[in-house]
Amino acid sequence: MTHAEEMLRTYPADLGGTDREALARSIDQCFDCAQTCTACADACLSEDGVANLVKCVRTCLDCADICDATGRVLSRHTGYDANLTRATLQACVTAVYFCVLEAPQNTAKYAKASAGQATENP
Amino acid sequence: MTHAEEMLRTYPADLGGTDREALARSIDQCFDCAQTCTACADACLSEDGVANLVKCVRTCLDCADICDATGRVLSRHTGYDANLTRATLQACVTAVYFCVLEAPQNTAKYAKASAGQATENP
Amino acid sequence: MTHAEEMLRTYPADLGGTDREALARSIDQCFDCAQTCTACADACLSEDGVANLVKCVRTCLDCADICDATGRVLSRHTGYDANLTRATLQACVTAVYFCVLEAPQNTAKYAKASAGQATENP
Amino acid sequence: MTHAEEMLRTYPADLGGTDREALARSIDQCFDCAQTCTACADACLSEDGVANLVKCVRTCLDCADICDATGRVLSRHTGYDANLTRATLQACVTAVYFCVLEAPQNTAKYAKASAGQATENP
Repeated sequence: MTHAEEMLRTYPADLGGTDREALARSIDQCFDCAQTCTACADACLSEDGVANLVKCVRTCLDCADICDATGRVLSRHTGYDANLTRATLQACVTAVYFCVLEAPQNTAKYAKASAGQATENP
Repeated sequence: MTHAEEMLRTYPADLGGTDREALARSIDQCFDCAQTCTACADACLSEDGVANLVKCVRTCLDCADICDATGRVLSRHTGYDANLTRATLQACVTAVYFCVLEAPQNTAKYAKASAGQATENP
Repeated sequence: MTHAEEMLRTYPADLGGTDREALARSIDQCFDCAQTCTACADACLSEDGVANLVKCVRTCLDCADICDATGRVLSRHTGYDANLTRATLQACVTAVYFCVLEAPQNTAKYAKASAGQATENP
Repeated sequence: MTHAEEMLRTYPADLGGTDREALARSIDQCFDCAQTCTACADACLSEDGVANLVKCVRTCLDCADICDATGRVLSRHTGYDANLTRATLQACVTAVYFCVLEAPQNTAKYAKASAGQATENP
């Protein structure tokens, strides 16, 4: 059981019909993707051909920031509002989508790790 | 001239037809709103009636995180993609909207400062 | 192998004598602790006795923000400087320490999960 | 009066002997520096000689993340602990110091804007 699952299991108020397992997985993937994208942007900076990877760096930095915010929003249940969660997830899905589009231009394996992670994201 | 304006003025590549003044204002408001909402959540925690303000705290924390991510996305111009910016701004507008809805329930003056800030936001 | 380990394994430049396994574990714990502390602050807000938990909320919010920044700094290797990493880790250790101190005042099980997580942190 | 000052002025509990004006200035500079460094890292990516600026990018990204966390910590007053604030500020000062060291290598004017901002930082 991940810490996200454990925190959901011990949440003191009612979570309604929430699929806790799916929610915990989404939360974990958001934080994991934030880490992977931060590391991917940094790895690009150390590539010989960094000049060809600047769009990948930028897309990864955006994706890290948005996944981070999304993981935090999903981790909160007090005063839940579906509209805010939906808008945040929509931004997250868009960021991950562009990250996956950008990654194939980076032939190094770390980009594939990042893309693989990203496509599993909510 | 704010630092955000100055950074836009000295950006080394073409910014197209961007209204730099409006963009700088949006960037500044995002970071300013992130600060205000962080402080508003904390101020609620020190109110006597904190138990009645938990939704305000949560909404402010979400708004801070989303405005922070949005301010960062808007500060980047390399490899710009309108779709990602739009989706991020949409989440930001939604977060600010719920923050303004929640603030009137908080009768203290700091909430009004927060709401005032929020409504000026992009 | 976690994604953090995979990113370290495929990093395109020299990592020197870095213990990659230990570094990956630290990175993962920072992001994990950021999630747990965000969720713990939120869980406190839904407790009946939230008024007695405001210091726990604040400490968790600080810890989440500092662990988040630390996890990002540790995920970057380009232009590494030991002094910056050390100062960041020192702030992180301090934040986690106060989080563990605060958690016992919260009798709910989620606080224990958070404290358990925190003590494993770098 | 900035929003940070206004939030301090309306904070519902006792702030002790805090110099509110100095604190508000520090908070504003942290968020401002986070913005400037985010923009500076991005501007470097659009420079012709990006390959010579990768250390500047990395240092700016770290500085943005640490200033962001510091600005949030300084914006909270509930359950204040001087040790945590001190450790966080120490990391912030270190991050800004390395940012200033790195910036002169970047001859473009935006780096000077960033360095100017950074040296005013707490």
